[in-house]
Amino acid sequence: MTTGLTELTARPDDSGIDTAVAAVRRLAAALLAAGGRVDLDLDDLARRLTAMASEVEELAPELADRMVDMWSGEGVTRHDPVTGPENAIAPPLVLSAEPDGAVCGTVNLGITYQGPPGCVHGGISALLLDHTLGVANAHAGTSGMTGTLTLRYERPVPLHTDLVVRGRQERVEGRKIWSHGTITAGGEVLVRAEGLFIDKHLARPR
Amino acid sequence: MTTGLTELTARPDDSGIDTAVAAVRRLAAALLAAGGRVDLDLDDLARRLTAMASEVEELAPELADRMVDMWSGEGVTRHDPVTGPENAIAPPLVLSAEPDGAVCGTVNLGITYQGPPGCVHGGISALLLDHTLGVANAHAGTSGMTGTLTLRYERPVPLHTDLVVRGRQERVEGRKIWSHGTITAGGEVLVRAEGLFIDKHLARPR
Repeated sequence: MTTGLTELTARPDDSGIDTAVAAVRRLAAALLAAGGRVDLDLDDLARRLTAMASEVEELAPELADRMVDMWSGEGVTRHDPVTGPENAIAPPLVLSAEPDGAVCGTVNLGITYQGPPGCVHGGISALLLDHTLGVANAHAGTSGMTGTLTLRYERPVPLHTDLVVRGRQERVEGRKIWSHGTITAGGEVLVRAEGLFIDKHLARPR
Repeated sequence: MTTGLTELTARPDDSGIDTAVAAVRRLAAALLAAGGRVDLDLDDLARRLTAMASEVEELAPELADRMVDMWSGEGVTRHDPVTGPENAIAPPLVLSAEPDGAVCGTVNLGITYQGPPGCVHGGISALLLDHTLGVANAHAGTSGMTGTLTLRYERPVPLHTDLVVRGRQERVEGRKIWSHGTITAGGEVLVRAEGLFIDKHLARPR
């Protein structure tokens, strides 16, 4: 890490599963950018990809065993749909601890995350913020499950732009946890999130 | 369609781009289910996938032209991250009009959408609901951009379970639109959403 901040999520490796997943992510973006009219034998591509998927599926462990593996340790997860280097849905966002106790990361989203023309889907902003508030809670020492999440969309969130996603735990009262977050670009707030979390956790698979 | 309801989103085709994207979706799930310890040459898989991505990228149209194509017509979109058959991030959810004016669809989510152990990520529930409220607004005749979205998480949302996502426009006053939605399983409400939308639209690319 060049910034000197403590990373709280997994940074993708440049070999193994993370590179295969990064390639899937790139292929997903490429296919969406190409569209159905592209001069390519898409049925053949589908067959080749399906063969690869079958090959991987056959070698995969039992889901119950894999779930134990995913959730082992108290560290960062590698599988989630926001920061997970092993999840092709995740951009992925890398979050670091800031000196003031907040957690923060920068992400640049392409057309797979589009809502309004040229802009990030409001639900994708919600996904990034919900996850970031969860990481902020874990970083602050008391985390839980989302009870209520309120998103205020102040300005459109552009695609192909560096977005700063920030979250911070505000206060804890009994089992209630309040946290808030923002998505900004160039210092301007685009989306605000307020979350009320409840300090309870589902049992980890084992 | 067997239910006789009017579909409001694109149902995936069984050839061409939709099948290639479905195969990417399946591969993303397979890799996440496999994990990094799988007995497979993941670097070689990454190389093969990267070569495919490069091939597709080289044949893709200019992004500006593709954006015009994506947003042409007044019908359903095929590219969005919730219902889009051309978007590997989308489950995809198919939404239909109900006789009472609501829009509704059933979706079953796997581990790429996981938040808490064995459960759907709260941000993914938000994504599904934000989009469904948008489709409900369009179906009701007055749509816009999300202003405020509030999610209430009443119970954990299980993976590998048929989830019913429903949305409905409640009222319109001037440029303000109120809508609400739910995610249910077996008739039990798991998540509720309330959205305030503003009747304004970003210009479509042309």
